[in-house]
Amino acid sequence: MATIVFCSVNKTTQTTARRCLLAPLKKLVRAGESHSSPTLLPGTRWLRFMSHGTAGRTAAGRTRRGALALTGAAAVTAAAVVAGVLANADHFQRAEMATKVSPAAVEREQEGDILERCREFMSPPVSDVAVLQERKGEMCTRMEMLIMQTQAEFCKALQEVDGGTFKVDRWQRKEGGGGISCVMQDGKVFEKAGVNVSVVFGHLTEEAAKQMRSRGKVLKGKDGKLPFCAMGVSSVIHPKNPHIPTVHFNYRYFEIEEEDGSKQWWFGGGTDLTPIYINEEDAFHFHNTLKEACDKHHSQYYPDFKKWCDRYFYIKHRGETRGIGGIFFDDLDSPSQEEAFSFVKSCARTVVPCYLPIVYQHLNDSFTDEEKDWQQVRRGRYVEFNLVYDRGVKFGLATPGSRIESILMSLPLTARWEYMHEPAKGTREAGMLKVLRNPKEWV
Amino acid sequence: MATIVFCSVNKTTQTTARRCLLAPLKKLVRAGESHSSPTLLPGTRWLRFMSHGTAGRTAAGRTRRGALALTGAAAVTAAAVVAGVLANADHFQRAEMATKVSPAAVEREQEGDILERCREFMSPPVSDVAVLQERKGEMCTRMEMLIMQTQAEFCKALQEVDGGTFKVDRWQRKEGGGGISCVMQDGKVFEKAGVNVSVVFGHLTEEAAKQMRSRGKVLKGKDGKLPFCAMGVSSVIHPKNPHIPTVHFNYRYFEIEEEDGSKQWWFGGGTDLTPIYINEEDAFHFHNTLKEACDKHHSQYYPDFKKWCDRYFYIKHRGETRGIGGIFFDDLDSPSQEEAFSFVKSCARTVVPCYLPIVYQHLNDSFTDEEKDWQQVRRGRYVEFNLVYDRGVKFGLATPGSRIESILMSLPLTARWEYMHEPAKGTREAGMLKVLRNPKEWV
Repeated sequence: MATIVFCSVNKTTQTTARRCLLAPLKKLVRAGESHSSPTLLPGTRWLRFMSHGTAGRTAAGRTRRGALALTGAAAVTAAAVVAGVLANADHFQRAEMATKVSPAAVEREQEGDILERCREFMSPPVSDVAVLQERKGEMCTRMEMLIMQTQAEFCKALQEVDGGTFKVDRWQRKEGGGGISCVMQDGKVFEKAGVNVSVVFGHLTEEAAKQMRSRGKVLKGKDGKLPFCAMGVSSVIHPKNPHIPTVHFNYRYFEIEEEDGSKQWWFGGGTDLTPIYINEEDAFHFHNTLKEACDKHHSQYYPDFKKWCDRYFYIKHRGETRGIGGIFFDDLDSPSQEEAFSFVKSCARTVVPCYLPIVYQHLNDSFTDEEKDWQQVRRGRYVEFNLVYDRGVKFGLATPGSRIESILMSLPLTARWEYMHEPAKGTREAGMLKVLRNPKEWV
Repeated sequence: MATIVFCSVNKTTQTTARRCLLAPLKKLVRAGESHSSPTLLPGTRWLRFMSHGTAGRTAAGRTRRGALALTGAAAVTAAAVVAGVLANADHFQRAEMATKVSPAAVEREQEGDILERCREFMSPPVSDVAVLQERKGEMCTRMEMLIMQTQAEFCKALQEVDGGTFKVDRWQRKEGGGGISCVMQDGKVFEKAGVNVSVVFGHLTEEAAKQMRSRGKVLKGKDGKLPFCAMGVSSVIHPKNPHIPTVHFNYRYFEIEEEDGSKQWWFGGGTDLTPIYINEEDAFHFHNTLKEACDKHHSQYYPDFKKWCDRYFYIKHRGETRGIGGIFFDDLDSPSQEEAFSFVKSCARTVVPCYLPIVYQHLNDSFTDEEKDWQQVRRGRYVEFNLVYDRGVKFGLATPGSRIESILMSLPLTARWEYMHEPAKGTREAGMLKVLRNPKEWV
């Protein structure tokens, strides 16, 4: 699947051919297709994995007491995970969106053996492997496996192009849940690359639960408390070369249990691109790759989620979008859990083919000091969006006990603020600003 | 007065002598003492001033219709001006603060001729000079003159040490009011220095007026609208050398008119220091200079406002203060308008003697790449505070039509975010963090 998406996104046969011939990338893309023949990570990583000693251990200690027996307070990268749900659906006319997905488009999940799949990850998953095996069919397990896999595929693709190695921090919350933060800093290609997974358990008050849900439905909990489970993968990549754009993605799942034992669940996510200079071919490739992934599930997904993305990543005080967008959605609970998951899976598997061809394309582009300065000014805008508007960051910073370093790993290594910076008319910098002030249709 | 404060602040006679002998600085300090013999600014600035053509012009056009005949919507650097009032007095036990100020400590204002004083400013004031002359005795006029004078004294002191020149932007709002932004960027000594004045007129709803006032008193307006006037001077200076600290100050006045014509008014402000490395002597000098200015008015001002400052400039998600503090106060409306103004005037005139001796002291300090990196990491924290917590910035960014460049001129030219940055034990960087995590008494 991923290869098809990857190879069919370019406007010209020439570019398609060039991109499809990038051997290292193809290998990475293929890695995402199937899990029937997993390969081991390099030795040290694998040793690190095993030394944690959770793989294969029985879930005698901290177990997930049923998919919804959640413990502890709202956690850490609840930021990345939960907060997206606050990104209100007001902006998006759900009514416009039909709920039927062609059965033919519903992809079969190839889950394979849990333990074997775990060997591909950057670290043991947050939940005990034995618990994941035991509850293989549950959505919480399937989603945790997907986000771990997405993290691993993306990190490996970035390591291959950079030559550097991700620092892997595995952290836990005493109340239950935790995360895995992978960060590569000051690499050859990447100034700062962060890929974060978090799996959080806790209880919400009825008021908090109402706020979490963008449609504000009143939920009834046992003694006013509702067990919830939130998980997601999120990433921001800031390259050094100003001709390689910054990318961000985030895919998340939320589950909440009412007094009568019934479950509310929904998915959210998105992938968006922040170039420093406009490159029409890159923009087409990126958006078209997303569109093809969306179109397999519903013809309205791409146009609606593209608009939602432009509205969400908007720096209001500047009157600019953060970048050239992509897709963004939240509160997705239709047409069925299976089909919604299938859509999220398609999106997650599209991250590498969306971004890596653009990285390879500009890997050796030369650049001037002026271009680097403009990149630094745009980095400043990125910081402004993330600290002032991003709901994930705001939620994370306001949550006591959050792992701040995982929340703020999205900030660039360096940024710049020049007073009254305004590019001269007719320059490429002015052209970029024009696009940010008037979002375009790229496909 | 200023000379006394300046010369009496050092711990050792040697340092005192060295600092007091700094001729250029003494000249600047003296300039703030009296306005009986104003000197012209350099030619170009003066020409610029005159070319605006407002000095001496009769107030035929846009006049301030009485000190409180305010027009237009909540404005621009309402950020700098108004927002401080939101910095709620909850943190500060006003009850602890006696309201008596020794009459002997109430300084006589030496206002001199309005037109002559205006010639010292960086730009014509926001209000027409003719209107200021006509309403010379009103607090709005006296405060506007004070903030313009403070801007000019500070800018000139910084220009003298740097050798560079401030870019002066004078801007107006069509509804009434405006401001003067002075920015020097990438100078010899200063990476970015901004000194901003704003004078804003408008109407508030009763609800907004209640929120503005930290003690939440219900105010009654004509048809639910209350005319208000808000003005202030604010500044952030980021030097290049990591051994010269960043300084920030802000002094502001707020006036609001009720239905029956009675006026509510209050002052706010503060000056605080953000060093990159702790220097005990600098810290003592800075705090002691502020303490002496405060002590002339009330013995509780310094201890109470020092605590308030530590609480306000707190980066909650880091568990660190932004810097080593100084003073911060708001909602000051006692013991009388005259005495509160006299206190604010003392504080405003203390800015140069607080900061400039520290600049001169470290002007030629050498520094390493590692020290510069640590400065950049601290700059990142400064950005975090300003974008996430600063009420002035938040209010400004949320106010439609704000002059964003004036609000965000407080951001450093460059900043850095390193994942999991934690200085090694026993280093000077670790020593700095320790102080930021446990605010000290410096005097």
